[in-house]
Amino acid sequence: MDLRTPKGTHDYSPRECFLVNNLVRSITDVFELHGAVSIDTPTFELRDLLCSKYGEDAKLIFDLADQGGDVCSLRYDLTVSFARYLAKNKIQKIKRFQIGKVFRRDQPSVAKGRLREFIQCDFDIAGSYMNMTADAEVLCIVGECFEKLNLRYRIRVSSRQVLGAYVQCSGVDMDKFMTVCSSIDKMDKMPWSEVAQELRAKGLDDTQLAKLEKYVGICGGIEVLTSLKENELYATEDGKKGVDDLVLLVEYLQIYGVKNVVFDLSLARGLDYYTGMIFEAVLVDFDEVGSVAGGGRYDMLVSSVLGRGENAANNVPCVGFSFGITRMLPVLQKSNTDTQVSKTVAFVGASGALLLEERMGVLRSLWASGIAAETFYTKKYTFSVHLQHVHDFNIPFFIVVGAREIVEGKVKLLYGKDKTLQMQGCIEEVIAMIRASE
Amino acid sequence: MDLRTPKGTHDYSPRECFLVNNLVRSITDVFELHGAVSIDTPTFELRDLLCSKYGEDAKLIFDLADQGGDVCSLRYDLTVSFARYLAKNKIQKIKRFQIGKVFRRDQPSVAKGRLREFIQCDFDIAGSYMNMTADAEVLCIVGECFEKLNLRYRIRVSSRQVLGAYVQCSGVDMDKFMTVCSSIDKMDKMPWSEVAQELRAKGLDDTQLAKLEKYVGICGGIEVLTSLKENELYATEDGKKGVDDLVLLVEYLQIYGVKNVVFDLSLARGLDYYTGMIFEAVLVDFDEVGSVAGGGRYDMLVSSVLGRGENAANNVPCVGFSFGITRMLPVLQKSNTDTQVSKTVAFVGASGALLLEERMGVLRSLWASGIAAETFYTKKYTFSVHLQHVHDFNIPFFIVVGAREIVEGKVKLLYGKDKTLQMQGCIEEVIAMIRASE
Repeated sequence: MDLRTPKGTHDYSPRECFLVNNLVRSITDVFELHGAVSIDTPTFELRDLLCSKYGEDAKLIFDLADQGGDVCSLRYDLTVSFARYLAKNKIQKIKRFQIGKVFRRDQPSVAKGRLREFIQCDFDIAGSYMNMTADAEVLCIVGECFEKLNLRYRIRVSSRQVLGAYVQCSGVDMDKFMTVCSSIDKMDKMPWSEVAQELRAKGLDDTQLAKLEKYVGICGGIEVLTSLKENELYATEDGKKGVDDLVLLVEYLQIYGVKNVVFDLSLARGLDYYTGMIFEAVLVDFDEVGSVAGGGRYDMLVSSVLGRGENAANNVPCVGFSFGITRMLPVLQKSNTDTQVSKTVAFVGASGALLLEERMGVLRSLWASGIAAETFYTKKYTFSVHLQHVHDFNIPFFIVVGAREIVEGKVKLLYGKDKTLQMQGCIEEVIAMIRASE
Repeated sequence: MDLRTPKGTHDYSPRECFLVNNLVRSITDVFELHGAVSIDTPTFELRDLLCSKYGEDAKLIFDLADQGGDVCSLRYDLTVSFARYLAKNKIQKIKRFQIGKVFRRDQPSVAKGRLREFIQCDFDIAGSYMNMTADAEVLCIVGECFEKLNLRYRIRVSSRQVLGAYVQCSGVDMDKFMTVCSSIDKMDKMPWSEVAQELRAKGLDDTQLAKLEKYVGICGGIEVLTSLKENELYATEDGKKGVDDLVLLVEYLQIYGVKNVVFDLSLARGLDYYTGMIFEAVLVDFDEVGSVAGGGRYDMLVSSVLGRGENAANNVPCVGFSFGITRMLPVLQKSNTDTQVSKTVAFVGASGALLLEERMGVLRSLWASGIAAETFYTKKYTFSVHLQHVHDFNIPFFIVVGAREIVEGKVKLLYGKDKTLQMQGCIEEVIAMIRASE
């Protein structure tokens, strides 16, 4: 029997799940701190909904077989399902998160953390709010997530309007806007010379490339925005709107105390549905994994889901981001050097004799006190096997039930990193000792 | 555009997710109290793995379309994937839980909580342990889950051996064992007269039915086991093994303080892979939803996944259960009468003027103090709209920023159920007040 998982999918081991579950709990806590609710949508959707939303990438969608009934495909991201949920339920205002697996028939690369099934965690604010207020809160949340995880980060910010304005100011025909963006998007993976070569093949001339090169090189703090106000792009409608929005954003970011934001005009992420501010977050100490979170404003997706003919009054402006849980896994593995896989605080072992029922009695007391504990229900494992397990799994306390102590109504507690510290007492005393250490 | 979800699937609203997330966290806490680790497996598996495990129900499996590469299907349950995980990684011993969606092309019935995509939460103990020890811990965990949820429950227990023994003692040809079981399995949905009619159609005569009727009527506490020792089924090999196992189980259940267990010989759940103790849990106050958790011992599934010719030495005995998260949803909706959807503790509103930046400043202080809080970033909403939101969503505290208070560096705090209680103070005082109430 073939025991492997399908190509591009992965079994998460207890250690991986431990890290992922802790990560999810940490960022969920941040979302909930901001008053977010959660929703959940099906793993597959009607195929019609998906096939028009991802441009060329639609070929990467996993289809379900035709077994009669609805024609369905596995979801490609959580964003389109969110837009459908808003449209279906006529929701005008919501701050929500959703965590789930998404599916892409991409060429998998385990080294790059690119799988065909991976976990995304999306946070979005939908609603017709005052300009840049929700955008600022989204960036505030991104920062809080990484601070909670004790990871050094940088948030690269740009905007669709600024991007459009400088492509226009570089003298590039706006028909080529999308294809130019897709080349610029590769700048975190290849040097400008290669990007320029690709753009030349797409018909851009040296004058245009020289101007573009200047723009994509613009990166820095608030001073970038000041200098853009002097730039010719500020004379265009899009350019003025884009820069003014970012200036207002900075004002709100300061109120919220958001740090580590840089304005980086080489940022050009998936522009198929973005309409305003865009951003990506990278980890300063883990440059090699690329961006681990990214998003932006997408004001037209709900009306797009409703169909072209729909009234703009039905539209719902949205801003949000996806946190790449699966991509964070190698980071978590490197930055967490312990070997913990469970919440187990105490292992109950025996010395000398089996003492099965006595161990079970001790377990009952521990569980009733809310102390996570386990034993092996086996005859053959000896004291040394128990101790080895405690050591291997980094379990802080080792409670030993021995024939001699039983007579006195006592158990032995071994603790400390090498388990040389010990006390002897009745189970209530041992529980008090464990609790005092928490 | 068709905005519905595919047939038999469901969007979970914020309220439903709030209830489901709390449920999952509660039972996960119980699993972790017992030292369980978690694993995660792909949403789809190679089709070959699945198609031989579910008998006639294999027709309910959702297939992925053939887009080249692996031939895959969506998982039908989490148990077969767990067995594959054990076999693939040669794991002999693990106590694990897994939460995920499973997929069945069944005729959906929303009223009965039967969907094509639903959430299961599985807990299993794999390992060659002393007889009935792990079985007792599994039942202990089931009880602890419901006690944590404050739900009155009853655990119906039987065993594959006892079932086999009484079918044999009723003079029924053992070739008919599976089909007889499948009829008996319907006894929680139809009266004996209808089950008997079905069995008569399957070729059973009146003498056999009269004997079977006596057996399926046996239900009660420990006295049932005492009386079974006097019954002719105790003279069969299976009967003796089954009854003796349950007697030993009772001994361990008493050590663990497990309550509300009844021995019910009409229990005959999915016997395709069960090999020993079987059980189902029902909610005393929610009889109409049927069993909400069920499981048992399945000692041969890992070797079955490895293929028939495999050595029994590769086998891994398992016992565990599935908790039907989706089926619990109507129960949670009825037993939780509040309207909470988020963890929000405080809403920040304004009176008189917009005061946007002041509200944002207050939010920053609240978030920094770990107090879940939100505002509306809107001009048009007035004090009364803010207050209505606080009321609708049952948010305990309402912080009001007003032009007059701002001058004095103060905010107003409204609290209490009808928001008539109030205090006025600087934000630090308000935060202290909120914290004191937690």
